[in-house]
Amino acid sequence: MKEGLLVVISGASGTGKGTVCASLFKEEAKLAFSVSATTRSPREGEVDGVNYYFLSKEKFEEMIEAGEFLEWAKVYDNYYGTPLKKVKERLKNGEDVLLEIDVQGALNVMKLMPDGVFIFLLPPSMEELERRIKGRGTETEESLKKRLGAAKAEIALGEKYTYIVVNDTVDKAVSDIRAILAAERLKTIRNAECFEELGR
Amino acid sequence: MKEGLLVVISGASGTGKGTVCASLFKEEAKLAFSVSATTRSPREGEVDGVNYYFLSKEKFEEMIEAGEFLEWAKVYDNYYGTPLKKVKERLKNGEDVLLEIDVQGALNVMKLMPDGVFIFLLPPSMEELERRIKGRGTETEESLKKRLGAAKAEIALGEKYTYIVVNDTVDKAVSDIRAILAAERLKTIRNAECFEELGR
Repeated sequence: MKEGLLVVISGASGTGKGTVCASLFKEEAKLAFSVSATTRSPREGEVDGVNYYFLSKEKFEEMIEAGEFLEWAKVYDNYYGTPLKKVKERLKNGEDVLLEIDVQGALNVMKLMPDGVFIFLLPPSMEELERRIKGRGTETEESLKKRLGAAKAEIALGEKYTYIVVNDTVDKAVSDIRAILAAERLKTIRNAECFEELGR
Repeated sequence: MKEGLLVVISGASGTGKGTVCASLFKEEAKLAFSVSATTRSPREGEVDGVNYYFLSKEKFEEMIEAGEFLEWAKVYDNYYGTPLKKVKERLKNGEDVLLEIDVQGALNVMKLMPDGVFIFLLPPSMEELERRIKGRGTETEESLKKRLGAAKAEIALGEKYTYIVVNDTVDKAVSDIRAILAAERLKTIRNAECFEELGR
């Protein structure tokens, strides 16, 4: 069984990661979302092991100590993280696993699983990013400024990723990402068995 | 002007490199064949600078001495080689340059231009390769054996390439190569200007 790809997609807020990833799923049959662990309470209808692995704070902190997260973050009072073991199981099983995570998390994944495919989504321009954030209509002048500043800082870290995809239109971004996945599957390091078969 | 890609395609004889490259050209508008230099005499209709750069043996050997070839080989009494300067000019001009060369030449290119895109074509199986070589109908039993042995030795060196494309059908091989080129164009190292534009 050929191992799946670990695909890491990040992008500043407002870049449209969520829409792009949702559309990518429809087209990539072997792609599976990684299920995150969290310490927040389940909302109505959420199922343990499907939406999240729901853990106690103590359990989560134990797992951090034991290095059992590929990446984790604390958002307000709750932890969120990607259990390393679960990801490795799915990859071994031939599934491609998608992590849609922030830049800090991705930098950690680069250290732990450098064979992953690291893709950074960029907005077509800062003006367009501003327009998209404003379009949500939920921002005050001050919070908009703050979000744009945070977006710039995140974008600067995008240079550490292997691939850059500009999210001009969702269709173009998805087809770019699919080309990246196709090319990554053709890498020699992922196809050692070809040589064994031909060498017989 | 964004620099073009240097694309190096190799494969054991009988793998179908020529057919795949010809079909690739029809679909990749920016792709240009590199023009080789040679010391053999022009055949009827061949134009200097189009089919080949026709050079004297002395001139060719001077250029070898001066390190002016990206790769070169001596086949029987004639030299063949890729002039480094011409390739660099075309890349700078935004053209993608394709080198369809043998493994020894490609290993040299890897040293001189490691940013190139190195693709190795594999036959679907050794049985199929044998069938294809036989299909030409020009081989004696002994020369067939010799060619298959040489092909095996070449294929073993394919592990040094970045990408492996199995030439099962020409269409599939061409679409694989096009995905590789698309992905390579999305590499962060080839898109530094994105960050400059967004950072303004």
